[in-house]
Amino acid sequence: MRILVTNDDGYLAPGLMALKQALEKIGEVTVVAPDQNWSAGGHVKTLHKPLRLTQVTLSDGSQAYASSGAPSDCVALVMLGAIDFKPDLIVSGINPNPNLGHDVTYSGTVTAAMEGALVGVPSIAVSVEAESAYPIASDFAAKLAPIVLERGLPRDVLLNVNVPAQAIKGVQITRMGHRVYHDELDARIDPRGKPYYWIGGQAPTGVPDDGTDIGALHNGFISVTPIQLDMTATKFVETLQAWPLPQ
Amino acid sequence: MRILVTNDDGYLAPGLMALKQALEKIGEVTVVAPDQNWSAGGHVKTLHKPLRLTQVTLSDGSQAYASSGAPSDCVALVMLGAIDFKPDLIVSGINPNPNLGHDVTYSGTVTAAMEGALVGVPSIAVSVEAESAYPIASDFAAKLAPIVLERGLPRDVLLNVNVPAQAIKGVQITRMGHRVYHDELDARIDPRGKPYYWIGGQAPTGVPDDGTDIGALHNGFISVTPIQLDMTATKFVETLQAWPLPQ
Repeated sequence: MRILVTNDDGYLAPGLMALKQALEKIGEVTVVAPDQNWSAGGHVKTLHKPLRLTQVTLSDGSQAYASSGAPSDCVALVMLGAIDFKPDLIVSGINPNPNLGHDVTYSGTVTAAMEGALVGVPSIAVSVEAESAYPIASDFAAKLAPIVLERGLPRDVLLNVNVPAQAIKGVQITRMGHRVYHDELDARIDPRGKPYYWIGGQAPTGVPDDGTDIGALHNGFISVTPIQLDMTATKFVETLQAWPLPQ
Repeated sequence: MRILVTNDDGYLAPGLMALKQALEKIGEVTVVAPDQNWSAGGHVKTLHKPLRLTQVTLSDGSQAYASSGAPSDCVALVMLGAIDFKPDLIVSGINPNPNLGHDVTYSGTVTAAMEGALVGVPSIAVSVEAESAYPIASDFAAKLAPIVLERGLPRDVLLNVNVPAQAIKGVQITRMGHRVYHDELDARIDPRGKPYYWIGGQAPTGVPDDGTDIGALHNGFISVTPIQLDMTATKFVETLQAWPLPQ
């Protein structure tokens, strides 16, 4: 089993190392990860500038590739043949914060897996509520990977895995919950008197409804959410068809 | 009606001007757009660096704001209060290329509307098959806007509008079609002997199935696709529940 490991925190992140070392026990792992942090960087295809891909040495002495692109660019570079490695499976993570509910379109961790699903490679995103969960999350990923490879995933579907910080009560298949963001604008003045803005505020919370990813973590369960690339609001189509649209 | 106009091609793009001038006939328009091209830049929330927001003059002499952030950051900056303007509606575009099928998670035009939907403001993304369609697309947007505002959109749903280059036969409510990408790696050597990579290749095509956005444009119809932020692969949940997941 050839596994491509990437992430959105950069190739030096401890979560990536935990994931890589767990997956090495079950397959041949190649790491291609960004050379900087791409958290909340979205599903990027870098078209307007060239990308670099550099061989680097990880903290365990192994060789990996660092890219100047986004996590999804890392996947694209591999799939387009930048290195001599064709993955059977793509695993992205481990992200040190959970990727729940509406986080998925922002998340570099999840959008790397979206890119994998788009090109037809089974793909898994792995995130944790706290870094203390890296051992459990990496162990879970290593057990899930062969099942995913054996059973396959439907076209344009990926798995989004989140692991709670508390003692694990089990695993739940979930739907996306409702994230609540607490972003605040932090307006500052630079040394030359010009304004600039940070998007600040507290970390997001969410509505812990039963059956959702947010509810699962809240109750101490590992959450596995199947995510599809088709975002059509199917239930709204009929309503919209009755609108008096301009012709 | 207070309308925020943004785009992903930057505040100087002709498509933005066409949209702004059409929407000015029906409401109070404020333009907050990126200071550079963000095509295929994804759903970004810029967290790791500060953002600039600068007053600029557009080609028609009007005042606007240019941001160093992504299209979705432009929406976030406004919604977080960086300027004294609370939109009733957000319209993003007009993008000079269509945003069809799998394009939506990449597209800066569509992800700006995603950010609007996330914060509860009715949002529309507008794209064209060719720039010759700007007059028709901007006219359609100006007719659609008051209907959207009057009827409202469900929580977490936006409208993705695409206008064909050929003569318009009508309007179709559609689902996301299947995009076919033709990306190729263009590997080059820089003047210092180091490799770098462009993601190149031909423009994407797609499967023109009836009922899809791609099919609508192919047949000469304006496509209106309702897009939802919930990406749960609902149909796959039952299958996944029968999997022997690691406990």
